[in-house]
Amino acid sequence: MKKYNKDLSYSYTLGLFPTFELLNKKKSLVKKIILSNKITEDVKDKIINICNKNNIKYIYDDNFICKVAEKENCYVVGIFEKKINILEDDKSHLVLVNPSNMGNVGTIIRTMLGFNYRNLAIIKPAVDIFNPKVIRASMGSIFSVNIAFFDSFAEYLKEYKNHNIYTFMLDGKNKLKDVKINYPNSLVFGNESRGLDKSYIKYNSVVIPHNDEIDSLNITVAIGISLYKFTE
Amino acid sequence: MKKYNKDLSYSYTLGLFPTFELLNKKKSLVKKIILSNKITEDVKDKIINICNKNNIKYIYDDNFICKVAEKENCYVVGIFEKKINILEDDKSHLVLVNPSNMGNVGTIIRTMLGFNYRNLAIIKPAVDIFNPKVIRASMGSIFSVNIAFFDSFAEYLKEYKNHNIYTFMLDGKNKLKDVKINYPNSLVFGNESRGLDKSYIKYNSVVIPHNDEIDSLNITVAIGISLYKFTE
Repeated sequence: MKKYNKDLSYSYTLGLFPTFELLNKKKSLVKKIILSNKITEDVKDKIINICNKNNIKYIYDDNFICKVAEKENCYVVGIFEKKINILEDDKSHLVLVNPSNMGNVGTIIRTMLGFNYRNLAIIKPAVDIFNPKVIRASMGSIFSVNIAFFDSFAEYLKEYKNHNIYTFMLDGKNKLKDVKINYPNSLVFGNESRGLDKSYIKYNSVVIPHNDEIDSLNITVAIGISLYKFTE
Repeated sequence: MKKYNKDLSYSYTLGLFPTFELLNKKKSLVKKIILSNKITEDVKDKIINICNKNNIKYIYDDNFICKVAEKENCYVVGIFEKKINILEDDKSHLVLVNPSNMGNVGTIIRTMLGFNYRNLAIIKPAVDIFNPKVIRASMGSIFSVNIAFFDSFAEYLKEYKNHNIYTFMLDGKNKLKDVKINYPNSLVFGNESRGLDKSYIKYNSVVIPHNDEIDSLNITVAIGISLYKFTE
């Protein structure tokens, strides 16, 4: 068992909250649970109970926790298999083109789940979605969302021909409040600093109007507003 | 000149973007500009030009920049006087009760500005709003927004009797999409982890509906959605 790196076939949930989400939502992916000797009795009992019921191995190993967790107050770690899912063809999707910030992606996944968007397409190159920092920022929501990777947006389109594509751009042609919403849809957002390039304007392009005193909205804010409006 | 701490009467802009915002929006607060010898010619010329026109002192001091800036690629620092403003009585306000995360507050200020909310009330205790991390996360937007501090929400109310108060809570009585919007208004949000306590339900309380698979929306996302709707 090693400190996390993106080439491993498994990753870690650090701390109680994401580990409980893992155990509740994706039992089949759990390889092992690591407990600290400092864990409180009631929490320990809860975790061991779930493990026993589901034939999940658990061990005590403070050295390991110390090695993989950065924060001191981490008393449990879940080891889980990275697994890529197939997106649901009849459901709406969020599409992130080249996302680069781990905290943002985690917050975005949490927001998606809250608004019933449960399918996330990532267009590569992209940040490592399975990094424990993403898992933590998602507060474990990542275990309730289907995630798939694509080498290009064209490749994504080829697989999901029936989706209504909405591309969010600073020079989008339709204001968010005037957009006609069709289902299933794919809401497409660009990289945090560059946005989507001009080639995306040919789709149903959407702008969230704001004044010119800021360059752009933060991407998690922009996605939050869009998901809210599309499910309002 | 010292490393930043909250008891100083001045703070720093670290890097080009926030320093330009400071120079463009709040010249009267600038005490001095510190340049690195590594700065590029064109940027240096621009800054020195603004300084000369406005009688602002500038010096070269790489040691100082090294001391106050954490990132290596910081080639300019602005030193500015902390100043608290009076909020505009006839304009709408955002009210943050006990905010505790610097990055969040910076992103919130940037979002406010984009949606023309230019008055921010902070109910203490709160994070240090003038910390360079907040300035950076706001991308300099902080210099375009009036900010005032209050010891309690009651004290804020006493000063702004004419404002229509909307309190955002998980158990708010009105759904965001059904809220009747009156002006000027005050949109009130609680601490990132605790939210607003029950005493706030007696105002026009608002909920942003989301499913129960997440505990709550991230506060910057919730504020973004609310500001969007209130200015839609």
